[in-house]
Amino acid sequence: MNPPSRASSATSPPLPVALSMGDACGIGPEIIAQACRAGALPGAFVVGDVAVMRRAARLTDRSGPGGCAHALPVIQIDSPAEVAALPPRTLPVLQADGLPPDLLEAPLGQVDRRAGLAAAACIRQAAALARRGVAAALVTAPIHKEALAAAGEPYPGHTELLQALAGGAPVRMMLANDELKTVLVTIHVALRRAIEGVTFDNVLATIRIAHHSARQWGVERPRIGVAGLNPHAGEGGLFGDEELRIIGPAVAAAQAEGIDARGPFAPDTIFMRARHAADHPGEFDIVVAMYHDQGLIPVKYLGVERGVNVTLGLPFIRTSPDHGTAFDLAGTGRADPASLIAAFEMAHRLAAGAR
Amino acid sequence: MNPPSRASSATSPPLPVALSMGDACGIGPEIIAQACRAGALPGAFVVGDVAVMRRAARLTDRSGPGGCAHALPVIQIDSPAEVAALPPRTLPVLQADGLPPDLLEAPLGQVDRRAGLAAAACIRQAAALARRGVAAALVTAPIHKEALAAAGEPYPGHTELLQALAGGAPVRMMLANDELKTVLVTIHVALRRAIEGVTFDNVLATIRIAHHSARQWGVERPRIGVAGLNPHAGEGGLFGDEELRIIGPAVAAAQAEGIDARGPFAPDTIFMRARHAADHPGEFDIVVAMYHDQGLIPVKYLGVERGVNVTLGLPFIRTSPDHGTAFDLAGTGRADPASLIAAFEMAHRLAAGAR
Repeated sequence: MNPPSRASSATSPPLPVALSMGDACGIGPEIIAQACRAGALPGAFVVGDVAVMRRAARLTDRSGPGGCAHALPVIQIDSPAEVAALPPRTLPVLQADGLPPDLLEAPLGQVDRRAGLAAAACIRQAAALARRGVAAALVTAPIHKEALAAAGEPYPGHTELLQALAGGAPVRMMLANDELKTVLVTIHVALRRAIEGVTFDNVLATIRIAHHSARQWGVERPRIGVAGLNPHAGEGGLFGDEELRIIGPAVAAAQAEGIDARGPFAPDTIFMRARHAADHPGEFDIVVAMYHDQGLIPVKYLGVERGVNVTLGLPFIRTSPDHGTAFDLAGTGRADPASLIAAFEMAHRLAAGAR
Repeated sequence: MNPPSRASSATSPPLPVALSMGDACGIGPEIIAQACRAGALPGAFVVGDVAVMRRAARLTDRSGPGGCAHALPVIQIDSPAEVAALPPRTLPVLQADGLPPDLLEAPLGQVDRRAGLAAAACIRQAAALARRGVAAALVTAPIHKEALAAAGEPYPGHTELLQALAGGAPVRMMLANDELKTVLVTIHVALRRAIEGVTFDNVLATIRIAHHSARQWGVERPRIGVAGLNPHAGEGGLFGDEELRIIGPAVAAAQAEGIDARGPFAPDTIFMRARHAADHPGEFDIVVAMYHDQGLIPVKYLGVERGVNVTLGLPFIRTSPDHGTAFDLAGTGRADPASLIAAFEMAHRLAAGAR
């Protein structure tokens, strides 16, 4: 999946991980600065705007007159290869091309088309570095979908944009924490449109992507649990027939390919069954969920700070924190970088893993 | 809500709690027998079939030749008033009228119309006792919706049947455990029909029922969180407009009545925000969920044995365990009575509570 990373790891410093800056008006720049200040982003660099990142470093500066914390140096780099030579707790930034010149005037905590434009440009340039093998993986800071739309972007979110950049190969969004991994058949569409997106081809493709991805992480025979769409998985056709017409046949087709897929199971208990904790071994390695909230409600239930978003099916590794731009916190310097750190650590693990 | 219970508690033994037997082919009779054997159902009686309950007592009998456990006496009673005089760890059964004479021949672990007929008859007769104030509350053992349909019942589940018995007053299903209480706008319908059921009137009625029920349990000013329907609560109309057209106006109408309702909020985080644990005080007392799995996935995530189903809006108290008939376990005597016991205990608390 990422041969340059593996080839280089034996003979040279590991490749750096690219972080896209996210929406400049949200908490993205600040949580990057916080995580970097905590020493939690070794070998990472930002694809973004140097001025925005310097503001974020100031906003998160707790040193004060009598304090003992140090300021965070933001260092503009010309190439990712420079990252390995920089001291720890400095923040390397590769200035993205074509950002709006008045980006810093976009008000913190608000939807702004300039921030949407800049966010998309940073994602495109960071993804290109990961795809070329110059970066080991891509970690994306949060963007705001309304800002993206205001900027005229045709893609509603990261996943759709990255899929287009990867040439349209089928990709799927996975949400993961220590207990649960769930892959979504449909994502950022109205619920009534999500139902239309539950087709035989989409469900089968999702099962295949889940299977092949888990194999790449080293699970020899991944156990894939597939959720139904309707209450009680339709209860034999009483509450909807998508399970009989669509999901069941897709599971059977996956089984015929040798995939250990099972279901469709009742949506209200499949996540509980898959939950893997010390006192509760999970029945499945991955759950295939039919729509956004079906999969995300259980992953987020015990706390968003533990959730990581992983895009499966791309030609490079991509993770992101499992929360949004939190406009109400932007500018306070107090947003929690825990999920960004978790996303960075998972990107590192997957890049170094036995794939 | 239940004046006879409160009036009698000071001067006479508390009223008994009625348990409907549930589907005779499922685990209902066995978990009742298990719970009774454990001494966990003081002051309860079953409305059901004596022969079926005797079989359940045998199936759950662990005494064996060299064992020290005792057999469970099943005692036919003619009136709930007899319960108070019976010794502990005996199982009083009020024989329901009009059950199929060959009910015991319905095979365990299978859908059978005779079991569906009997289950509905037991619910009707037990509910009548609760409504007349002869029983303090009704706890219902699991039924199978396909058996109910095979028996020609027009109601897909307990909640709808009980609503009809109560004269059609608006009722709602609440799922609750120690951490989370969630009330559902729509329940046992296909997801695409559930979307049609998210109307201004339904959402407002659900908020009102949640508010008034929580007030009856002693919460002076209940904090009601209302979930959106679509991902990110529609993200400003990008992913569906039900939040703008329907749910938001219903929340505003509830606020105008003095109810502390807030939302609509993103469905994937509202349950996490409402979760109430020792280290995590919940933001809301009750969450109003738009459809079955939206509300039930988070309540069940940490284990179905902790979940209790409560019907709000009936003229009597009704709870039930938060699991089904578990046909694969029927006849083994090994089904877990924990959720039934939790339902019985919640019924007791609500009946005795400061409503």
